[in-house]
Amino acid sequence: MPTLGPNRYGKAETRVVRVVRDGAVHHLKDLNVSVALAGEMDAVHLCGDNANVLPTDTVKNTVYAFAKEHGIDAAEEFGIRLARHFVTGQESIHRARVRIEEYAWERIGTAGSARHSFARRGQEVRTARIAYDGERWEVVSGLTGLTVLNTTDSEFRGYVKDRYTTLEETSDRVLATDVHARWRYGWSDDTRPVPDWQRAHAEARGHLLSAFAETYSRSLQQTLYQMGARVIERRPEIDEIRLSLPNKHHVLVDLEPFGLTNDNEVYVAADRPYGLIEATVLRDGAEPLIPTD
Amino acid sequence: MPTLGPNRYGKAETRVVRVVRDGAVHHLKDLNVSVALAGEMDAVHLCGDNANVLPTDTVKNTVYAFAKEHGIDAAEEFGIRLARHFVTGQESIHRARVRIEEYAWERIGTAGSARHSFARRGQEVRTARIAYDGERWEVVSGLTGLTVLNTTDSEFRGYVKDRYTTLEETSDRVLATDVHARWRYGWSDDTRPVPDWQRAHAEARGHLLSAFAETYSRSLQQTLYQMGARVIERRPEIDEIRLSLPNKHHVLVDLEPFGLTNDNEVYVAADRPYGLIEATVLRDGAEPLIPTD
Amino acid sequence: MPTLGPNRYGKAETRVVRVVRDGAVHHLKDLNVSVALAGEMDAVHLCGDNANVLPTDTVKNTVYAFAKEHGIDAAEEFGIRLARHFVTGQESIHRARVRIEEYAWERIGTAGSARHSFARRGQEVRTARIAYDGERWEVVSGLTGLTVLNTTDSEFRGYVKDRYTTLEETSDRVLATDVHARWRYGWSDDTRPVPDWQRAHAEARGHLLSAFAETYSRSLQQTLYQMGARVIERRPEIDEIRLSLPNKHHVLVDLEPFGLTNDNEVYVAADRPYGLIEATVLRDGAEPLIPTD
Amino acid sequence: MPTLGPNRYGKAETRVVRVVRDGAVHHLKDLNVSVALAGEMDAVHLCGDNANVLPTDTVKNTVYAFAKEHGIDAAEEFGIRLARHFVTGQESIHRARVRIEEYAWERIGTAGSARHSFARRGQEVRTARIAYDGERWEVVSGLTGLTVLNTTDSEFRGYVKDRYTTLEETSDRVLATDVHARWRYGWSDDTRPVPDWQRAHAEARGHLLSAFAETYSRSLQQTLYQMGARVIERRPEIDEIRLSLPNKHHVLVDLEPFGLTNDNEVYVAADRPYGLIEATVLRDGAEPLIPTD
Repeated sequence: MPTLGPNRYGKAETRVVRVVRDGAVHHLKDLNVSVALAGEMDAVHLCGDNANVLPTDTVKNTVYAFAKEHGIDAAEEFGIRLARHFVTGQESIHRARVRIEEYAWERIGTAGSARHSFARRGQEVRTARIAYDGERWEVVSGLTGLTVLNTTDSEFRGYVKDRYTTLEETSDRVLATDVHARWRYGWSDDTRPVPDWQRAHAEARGHLLSAFAETYSRSLQQTLYQMGARVIERRPEIDEIRLSLPNKHHVLVDLEPFGLTNDNEVYVAADRPYGLIEATVLRDGAEPLIPTD
Repeated sequence: MPTLGPNRYGKAETRVVRVVRDGAVHHLKDLNVSVALAGEMDAVHLCGDNANVLPTDTVKNTVYAFAKEHGIDAAEEFGIRLARHFVTGQESIHRARVRIEEYAWERIGTAGSARHSFARRGQEVRTARIAYDGERWEVVSGLTGLTVLNTTDSEFRGYVKDRYTTLEETSDRVLATDVHARWRYGWSDDTRPVPDWQRAHAEARGHLLSAFAETYSRSLQQTLYQMGARVIERRPEIDEIRLSLPNKHHVLVDLEPFGLTNDNEVYVAADRPYGLIEATVLRDGAEPLIPTD
Repeated sequence: MPTLGPNRYGKAETRVVRVVRDGAVHHLKDLNVSVALAGEMDAVHLCGDNANVLPTDTVKNTVYAFAKEHGIDAAEEFGIRLARHFVTGQESIHRARVRIEEYAWERIGTAGSARHSFARRGQEVRTARIAYDGERWEVVSGLTGLTVLNTTDSEFRGYVKDRYTTLEETSDRVLATDVHARWRYGWSDDTRPVPDWQRAHAEARGHLLSAFAETYSRSLQQTLYQMGARVIERRPEIDEIRLSLPNKHHVLVDLEPFGLTNDNEVYVAADRPYGLIEATVLRDGAEPLIPTD
Repeated sequence: MPTLGPNRYGKAETRVVRVVRDGAVHHLKDLNVSVALAGEMDAVHLCGDNANVLPTDTVKNTVYAFAKEHGIDAAEEFGIRLARHFVTGQESIHRARVRIEEYAWERIGTAGSARHSFARRGQEVRTARIAYDGERWEVVSGLTGLTVLNTTDSEFRGYVKDRYTTLEETSDRVLATDVHARWRYGWSDDTRPVPDWQRAHAEARGHLLSAFAETYSRSLQQTLYQMGARVIERRPEIDEIRLSLPNKHHVLVDLEPFGLTNDNEVYVAADRPYGLIEATVLRDGAEPLIPTD
């Protein structure tokens, strides 16, 4: 009989919105929570015996109940609470992984004193991934959908040329990417003080942006490393960061057939294909644990 | 032989990015331009005779060339220039419709004086649709992807109940929607002064937001009308506005099975189905011209 | 006070799956139903008075209840039943429009006699749009997501050249498109026999495919007209058809830099921009009623 | 200075369409190719020195040139050829990973003898992932977007109940999922005969479908294991398979408020949240190498 290998199950994409009403001033948290559980699951796979299976419907209910009972502050804290609950609450469950996407809202400014109106801030999504095996925590936070662009201070020269190379070197190009970043906190032990998740996230995000803007880039790899290194250098609570950066090519349009000169002014924003640059940057001595698929 | 009815052709989704370099301070415009042309096109449909067909590839080239030759200020102005070119430049083309999506970028703040780094502002998209038949202009501007939410001051009561009604009345619900707005300017004649497109757009957007926030809502229809009416009342250059507002249901979770009371605190953000409310609001005497499909 | 213009409301995207159990042989219908209602709706827009408003939640319930009470045969028939119910059942509702997407499933062949397993047939979606005002019916059926491609018998020559034209003529190109078709039935009167919706749809689809395949194309406009004309000529129950055909450009790759000749063998399947060709084809004397937006 | 961890770069989503013209009978292959390369890349990350970097533009060119020079038979074979080229062709590149999506087309039947017209077969995508380090091959094939549904022979009972459990047991439910399958071939060594990729894929797909249809399911985990085990048992060239199966919930609608009985006939096809069941099934003694993220 074939062997059962690594497996997990759970409820994905439970959408929970939590409102806190502080008089006329309301607060809003908007999350998408995915929980995956693993443990003694041979019987359910091999013979359909559900005796060790907490239903995924219950997982969903737990997310909503916890939103009420404990509120939602940082996504990381909410994920830790959920992961601990499943691993310590069910004997058959040995490991939990909670993934959270958080959508940001900002207040709509109005004349009166009422503060209950909000607008979604955009396409950027804050992410958190919490893993727990009953002993050790692994918290990886990050962001996706942060699109950035430099109109200059980017070149690409001195690369390998082979039989199939036609690209011309350039000393001034547009450099654009969608930042997909995940960083792992050194914290892994319940007995140690937890990081300030909100501040760490805001600061890491700021460092990514400023490193992108301030780096004179000879390649997207160099920019990537500078972005990652700045986070590692400035945030002691972060041991590892992995960046996945599509090179969103902006191609200079050839205007000569129309008797015009394109002096780095008019670009095609191309869809596909795109370069894809991925790398991990680590604190000295840290192990790379963020999955690279 | 079957008759040829209404027809048009053109190039859709030409992505153009235009950079202006003012010393170390750079400026960025990012558009998606779709052009549709109509005119004497019987021969190409009926016998494949292309003698009246300007290729869609040429339409694309024209977008890029105009970005260089004339720059891009307001999307509306750029669309007017393109529409005029096609209608006056080709005898066989009698009507042009230009649709533009504009993506907003904001500067990344950095320490130095360099000003060439940008981040995409989010999912909201500014839209413009310019139609021209050689005599009359129709300019419809708008926005999509503006997601807003009120945590209170919304009720839904006193509605019709029939055999299939199970919904309970509520006097305090979350009201959320993705604003899809299109407004038509009164301007239609080349001899009249054109509106200030940038200011009109910013102001209309602001009125939509504040009317949404400030309306005590007995139904999403009422909120919609208030939003539309405020734009018509405050912006004399706008004669008509059409709003399409999905009611993004936020369903209160039943926490009683867990011994908890949900005091308007925990909601499911539901995907489908959703209510869909659509209406046009008009200046007195104006005709509804924005298509309702 | 600004005037209320055209408006409607309803429930969009109610997803209903209907199973019929004929012993061990089961049957499956899978629809996405969107209902929009219009009528005496001034009070709800102007003052939030819901006395004429049947809740959209009730609309959803009705879809599910009708699936049980009446079953689902053709999507058109189901839509007609719903539209009639809302217009005749509520005095305040004068017009209904029902849009349906139908997803096709095919049986998974198995050894035994059981017939309860299905696989989704693909990305093609069957569409229907039923409008009713208490007297007159308008039924527009169609399809989207049918992607087709000819590897030869397509050319593009003899077109207009202006200052911005760089495209070279071609006598042998790949022609590919996603067929988006909507056809209107002549039937509009309850006293007349209704068409055989299932057969008409299958036949119209077949004619679109064969006309695409059999036309030697000098332009996509010509192919479009041939596709539409064949449906009008062969299906007497159909009076009008509108086709929207993106020209999914397949660009011949220049392999000369690598010392290779590209003899119409290797193509880039491009994303954007794309040509977009739209036209209506009509039975002689029929009016174009399908919206062109 | 922070350490550079695992990294790779390449060109993603190169869309190549290859036509073979066998007289009037044409053949079509339609791929989306993503290549990632790794090796001596410290200098480019740390100092922007591109001397070891083959441009991603060259990677794209190579895909097109190889499509001409070698044709495209099985996606796996094409990926192997590309991976070998990059690893053996550039000293600085030590590892290559090629990912391919293949889109299926079927012929449009026509009366004449011409055979150059095709329709896309649907949303199902065939996948292949080839990894090579100069010595060892790892080939993982699979599919995504295969949506299947059983209308009966599925129950869910006997599960754990805790404080947050409200789900009722069911002995007859709809079971539906989107099959996402990846299977790893035992072949890893150039000196051994390669599998028949086309036949292996077709057979594995067939086993997944028939196991899904023929399993009386007490849980989706059980169905998953049966699907995986059947592939391992019947295809000796496959050592490992990983399945990721969303439980696409079909919720029985409560029709009692309308005086109707829902005898397993009318369902809501729900979007979110969804159960997510993931597991690997292995040949005895095989190691789980397919990434689980």
